[in-house]
Amino acid sequence: MSQTDLTIFDKLESEVRSYVRSFPAVFNKAKGEKIWDEDGNEYLDFFSGAGALNYGHNDDKMKAKLIEYIMDDGITHSLDKASTAKAGFLTKFNEVILKPRQLDYKVMFPGPTGTNTVESALKLARKVTGRTDVISFTNGFHGMTIGSLSVTGNSFKRKGAGVPLQNVVTMPYDNFVNDDLDYLERFLEEAGSGVAIPAAMILETVQGEGGINTARFEWLKRVEDICKRWDILLIIDDVQAGVGRTGTFFSFEPAGIKPDIVCLSKSLSGYGLPFAITLIRPELDIWEPGEHNGTFRGNNHAFITATAALEYWEDPDFEKNIQVKSEMVHNFLEKMVKTYPEMKGEVRGRGLMAGIASDVDGFSNKVAAKAFENGMIMETSGPKDEVFKLFPPLNIKEKNLEKGFEIIEESIKSLVKEPVTN
Amino acid sequence: MSQTDLTIFDKLESEVRSYVRSFPAVFNKAKGEKIWDEDGNEYLDFFSGAGALNYGHNDDKMKAKLIEYIMDDGITHSLDKASTAKAGFLTKFNEVILKPRQLDYKVMFPGPTGTNTVESALKLARKVTGRTDVISFTNGFHGMTIGSLSVTGNSFKRKGAGVPLQNVVTMPYDNFVNDDLDYLERFLEEAGSGVAIPAAMILETVQGEGGINTARFEWLKRVEDICKRWDILLIIDDVQAGVGRTGTFFSFEPAGIKPDIVCLSKSLSGYGLPFAITLIRPELDIWEPGEHNGTFRGNNHAFITATAALEYWEDPDFEKNIQVKSEMVHNFLEKMVKTYPEMKGEVRGRGLMAGIASDVDGFSNKVAAKAFENGMIMETSGPKDEVFKLFPPLNIKEKNLEKGFEIIEESIKSLVKEPVTN
Amino acid sequence: MSQTDLTIFDKLESEVRSYVRSFPAVFNKAKGEKIWDEDGNEYLDFFSGAGALNYGHNDDKMKAKLIEYIMDDGITHSLDKASTAKAGFLTKFNEVILKPRQLDYKVMFPGPTGTNTVESALKLARKVTGRTDVISFTNGFHGMTIGSLSVTGNSFKRKGAGVPLQNVVTMPYDNFVNDDLDYLERFLEEAGSGVAIPAAMILETVQGEGGINTARFEWLKRVEDICKRWDILLIIDDVQAGVGRTGTFFSFEPAGIKPDIVCLSKSLSGYGLPFAITLIRPELDIWEPGEHNGTFRGNNHAFITATAALEYWEDPDFEKNIQVKSEMVHNFLEKMVKTYPEMKGEVRGRGLMAGIASDVDGFSNKVAAKAFENGMIMETSGPKDEVFKLFPPLNIKEKNLEKGFEIIEESIKSLVKEPVTN
Amino acid sequence: MSQTDLTIFDKLESEVRSYVRSFPAVFNKAKGEKIWDEDGNEYLDFFSGAGALNYGHNDDKMKAKLIEYIMDDGITHSLDKASTAKAGFLTKFNEVILKPRQLDYKVMFPGPTGTNTVESALKLARKVTGRTDVISFTNGFHGMTIGSLSVTGNSFKRKGAGVPLQNVVTMPYDNFVNDDLDYLERFLEEAGSGVAIPAAMILETVQGEGGINTARFEWLKRVEDICKRWDILLIIDDVQAGVGRTGTFFSFEPAGIKPDIVCLSKSLSGYGLPFAITLIRPELDIWEPGEHNGTFRGNNHAFITATAALEYWEDPDFEKNIQVKSEMVHNFLEKMVKTYPEMKGEVRGRGLMAGIASDVDGFSNKVAAKAFENGMIMETSGPKDEVFKLFPPLNIKEKNLEKGFEIIEESIKSLVKEPVTN
Repeated sequence: MSQTDLTIFDKLESEVRSYVRSFPAVFNKAKGEKIWDEDGNEYLDFFSGAGALNYGHNDDKMKAKLIEYIMDDGITHSLDKASTAKAGFLTKFNEVILKPRQLDYKVMFPGPTGTNTVESALKLARKVTGRTDVISFTNGFHGMTIGSLSVTGNSFKRKGAGVPLQNVVTMPYDNFVNDDLDYLERFLEEAGSGVAIPAAMILETVQGEGGINTARFEWLKRVEDICKRWDILLIIDDVQAGVGRTGTFFSFEPAGIKPDIVCLSKSLSGYGLPFAITLIRPELDIWEPGEHNGTFRGNNHAFITATAALEYWEDPDFEKNIQVKSEMVHNFLEKMVKTYPEMKGEVRGRGLMAGIASDVDGFSNKVAAKAFENGMIMETSGPKDEVFKLFPPLNIKEKNLEKGFEIIEESIKSLVKEPVTN
Repeated sequence: MSQTDLTIFDKLESEVRSYVRSFPAVFNKAKGEKIWDEDGNEYLDFFSGAGALNYGHNDDKMKAKLIEYIMDDGITHSLDKASTAKAGFLTKFNEVILKPRQLDYKVMFPGPTGTNTVESALKLARKVTGRTDVISFTNGFHGMTIGSLSVTGNSFKRKGAGVPLQNVVTMPYDNFVNDDLDYLERFLEEAGSGVAIPAAMILETVQGEGGINTARFEWLKRVEDICKRWDILLIIDDVQAGVGRTGTFFSFEPAGIKPDIVCLSKSLSGYGLPFAITLIRPELDIWEPGEHNGTFRGNNHAFITATAALEYWEDPDFEKNIQVKSEMVHNFLEKMVKTYPEMKGEVRGRGLMAGIASDVDGFSNKVAAKAFENGMIMETSGPKDEVFKLFPPLNIKEKNLEKGFEIIEESIKSLVKEPVTN
Repeated sequence: MSQTDLTIFDKLESEVRSYVRSFPAVFNKAKGEKIWDEDGNEYLDFFSGAGALNYGHNDDKMKAKLIEYIMDDGITHSLDKASTAKAGFLTKFNEVILKPRQLDYKVMFPGPTGTNTVESALKLARKVTGRTDVISFTNGFHGMTIGSLSVTGNSFKRKGAGVPLQNVVTMPYDNFVNDDLDYLERFLEEAGSGVAIPAAMILETVQGEGGINTARFEWLKRVEDICKRWDILLIIDDVQAGVGRTGTFFSFEPAGIKPDIVCLSKSLSGYGLPFAITLIRPELDIWEPGEHNGTFRGNNHAFITATAALEYWEDPDFEKNIQVKSEMVHNFLEKMVKTYPEMKGEVRGRGLMAGIASDVDGFSNKVAAKAFENGMIMETSGPKDEVFKLFPPLNIKEKNLEKGFEIIEESIKSLVKEPVTN
Repeated sequence: MSQTDLTIFDKLESEVRSYVRSFPAVFNKAKGEKIWDEDGNEYLDFFSGAGALNYGHNDDKMKAKLIEYIMDDGITHSLDKASTAKAGFLTKFNEVILKPRQLDYKVMFPGPTGTNTVESALKLARKVTGRTDVISFTNGFHGMTIGSLSVTGNSFKRKGAGVPLQNVVTMPYDNFVNDDLDYLERFLEEAGSGVAIPAAMILETVQGEGGINTARFEWLKRVEDICKRWDILLIIDDVQAGVGRTGTFFSFEPAGIKPDIVCLSKSLSGYGLPFAITLIRPELDIWEPGEHNGTFRGNNHAFITATAALEYWEDPDFEKNIQVKSEMVHNFLEKMVKTYPEMKGEVRGRGLMAGIASDVDGFSNKVAAKAFENGMIMETSGPKDEVFKLFPPLNIKEKNLEKGFEIIEESIKSLVKEPVTN
């Protein structure tokens, strides 16, 4: 099969397929920040599996542990029976992540995907409070099953539900319009506002799919205060922004808040394997056994690689390095915006979750397409795909980061020279 | 950690954990129909990961392919980009499964779990028909996210939603009461029935969680006829009953029906890895790109093992062997019911999806508990856990199947001798 | 304006107008069982305002009281302030209706229409039980606002909502299919049935709009037993069947049941004025002041005429006379069915709520149209208008009843002679 | 029965009764702006039946017409058959109201109460647009049946529904927070806002129950512009603010907007009789016959009095007089606020829909209670009853208006002298 031989996919795979249309190659190998297609073409990966590959592809340490486990016939699938691999993960997660951050959470295994953890969080918040409504925020993205979709802002995705989405009120995220939290607070204060006190608020500290919108720490802090004022549970969906993407393990650490419930998935397994957990403040852990479940909630391969991945966090330099690279990225992006005013760009993001929102229709998609031609994978986000999004692995080599910058600058340059049309 | 050292789970894992309470051991190794705990105790597995391990644990052929793929740095996580492993799966699935059965389906990768495929099926049915309601059946089980949960019958699970579940009408499954389909048809015929023509009907041909209830082929055929009469889409949820569990790859084959949409997951990867697909009649494949998605819809490890697993189906003896073992199981169960009338048992099921429903309160749970003491893992199902459920791997050795029968008979015998109380 | 001058209505009134299309005349006067149009044509009224004129038009006793009240500047509109007229109604209703029947109800004034009382009943049942679902029955009709419409069976009316109707499960009414209540009970018993224990069941003892379907007393009794078994509230919607229409004040009296909540409207004012009440078992009266309200819940003109109307019920002969006429009607209808087998008729109903369901498409509408040509007003009902419906005033003169029979027989006769086509 | 003899109501009427608790007297007579209780006590009516008695009680002209009609056995109850009285109303309404204002509406008779007209408007908007959501505004009040309640802001009333209220998004009314319509428009513009383009927006130009909140004309104009920009239907609920209450027949006239649908009720009949209409832009009148209906949609007594009431509008001085009195009221209220700063008052309203919002907890209720002691009926509104509300009849005699002012000032004065506590 050559790079352009996508016949089998065109013939057999549903029209719903999406990324294959932006990146029309058949990939077969991957390592670190590089992937290769069947024709041997090499691509620099500034996409990281939409945030599921923060440690790059096929990390050697995790790979060794995984191979050893499989070779040894370690139990693969265990539902929520106890397993040695799971005990290992729980122990390591507690020691490396929770304890040092003075976080006291119970760990729930809700099924191995982001939408599973979000659905479990919403259920629990409703059960604990006895309330039905949840407040979500504009441009939030939380998943594609009906519960998660109901708290997702994107109108195209929402329409896909085929039924009205209920029990949710959408409030403005930071910077959506002015005075956003005054507005939200007024709605809660006023008995005639039509908005009931909700079970929970759910939000991302940086919105990945929604356009790399970044909430200020004081905004997050005030959200937490509002939640406390009315006994509303605060759910942070850290599926995309967590596991180091913004510079700390949890994206909310520098804001100084302590959510009631935290959703983690994507890069949690470290190796790109399906895995998700829901962290729950212990007093809220009033689940009945089996009240929420899922066949693949005990994916031991993921326990093994996730445990290995957590070792990175034992070294304080790991976080520092992310911050160094984050600075490089933001400096580069600021330079681009200044150097190429034609793209009407605005730098967005925090840590290695960054990008440029271009006010020129279609521009960002073209930058990503050019970059692909030039050997780089990078995606766009935002309701109108107006943001091109830099998501390199956290441990990318600096020279490859710089190589990526070059490709991006070339792509931009080639586009601002030619007339921009749709 | 010894068998009884579950401290770490008690301390760190959420109260929602469930199977660990029935099977209080820490498992670490598994092979074929056997698993072992940390103390080296061996258990015969008549549970098969709730249907996710139809080929037993850690099958050698799949293991070899998976190790090779990982060693070779094959791409692990690819979202819905094209990959060599995915092309391999699509090709093999088409050749070994679809073509020989004259089934013409497009394959959708909706995310790697059963509830993902069900949610995608419901969305598509609503989109295609422009209708909102779906008809589900009593004791159906389809998943735990809000869309799938709304078509699930179990009241404990439904209550867990915390919000009213909408856009669904539950109709009686075969044998729920008499004349079930007359009833259903009357509701559709009568303009004053309060039941609108739905987008779809969704059902399992044998209900796993609902109590191993088995629909007769003529009942299934008539459901298909009713769907055709009113242009209703027929969705078969073959997540648990599919992939050979009832004796054929798809559970609906012997009924002679052709569903519009089929949901597959659990044993599809063969190795217990998270994987699911949705099969769609080509004319219905009107998805927009990305209208439904999910981060782990491109789990290449699962593509590799699933492709290897499909090789079993190239050998016609594979199906025959399932049927031989099925007969052994049903003969054994019939014998049990006759020999131990005290348990007021009724044989349920089809193929290797079988069990006994006991009309004595709590009896089935006790059989399962005794069996665990005697070195076997077996679960119960049904709204009151009234069924103990034999789910051995399809390729279990005959002598181990017989060993399992012995353990079960011993467990029953020990219980009917002692007075049954709760 | 002549009989056929409907210009003003065609020009200014919405297309939603309905009866004017069946009875294209401009009516101006009415008395007892007679109404007249502007051209002086006289019509015999076998329609009784769809059950709102059980005492005929403009009853002289009520008229005198009403005129006196108006002349005297009695307060007309009082919301739920206390008024002399309202005290009079409450006292009389208690003495003449409740006490003699040993019924102990609180009286709620929910707004002056049938749908107001139904909405208030549903709200209260949900408040009392803390449950959301309500069970309604096939072909039930309860009103056109969203709450009442959700428990109404008719698909054309339901579709008019423009949103999915929620929190309702429709169960089969008596004779919808066999074994109806076995079916309902099984759904409630089975924890996996997908049907939660509801707040209430709501039903009519005879379904007016639904096709004059009549529930047997033993069926009603068993519904009451089922409600008691699960602490479900029983709401009888007696808006159309109540106030004597079936032969007793409440339609449920001969069945020997005592509903928890009763909805009354239509003929309650006696004079055709808007009026409704909700009767509530005292222990259930946990409303907060003003929790449900409505501007016209204090219609004193209606209090005056309703009080006068209740005087009829002080005379035991009043009920007996209804029963005499009921027998005349049923004998006549049985004769029609036998004499004119071509219409494939079936007698339906109880008391003076009776009709013939014809299995010949369009036949019943033609009978009603012919009858109108011959000077009689009579409507059809049922999901396909398959029933022509005899609703004479309860106090119609016997000779006029017989005159009505003649008109109907003539209409039938003329239709069976000619070939029946659509 | 003496004034304090409310025994019959305590014993027989539901706890839901409300105004009788604020005005504990048994009323029996009423004329113009005066009502009397059974003990002969006279009260000045600054309440006007919550806006249902804009012409005062028992207007002599209407009374004469009504008596004549009843005496003459005019048809009382006609559903939506044509009647002479209805033709008279339609003709007069067209000539006196619609034509002079160059408004071209079809008239729908949806049932005789405010909630009926609102429910019909919502249904039609959803039918016309094929969309499900409706935008309502904070502190809006539209009725108590489930459809109308879903667009009502008050949390106490909403909770009474007993089910989650769906398919509605509440947006900030004028002055709820700053930049309200920027906010609303941003939600509609942004594809990721979680708010779909709705079928309609529904609002009152002055919010009666919500606290006499008044929308500026430029705000209303901009709402209309926004509706046009996205093809959203604009529904003005003029149930309380219409029929002259704000100084013009329709409250929206001076704002220069033309709603797509208008809801009228309350004072429409003139005499306090139940009556409502829905006005529909002709192109939107796509109802099927009978798609919405209601037993009391043909209340001929109301047609007669409503027709007589419209004669007032033939005299241009009628509107001018309202404006003169409005000025008197507003001058008086401004004076009160200045003279009694202790009540922390703010003048609210437009026309004869006016009041003072006091920022002192419980103050407004005390003013109303004092006024009652002093022989005046006046109610409070707003989510915390923070507004006392002047709703005199439009045709109140000037000396009685001034007498009312005196009573109010006395009440205020007596309260600011004493310490204010709850």
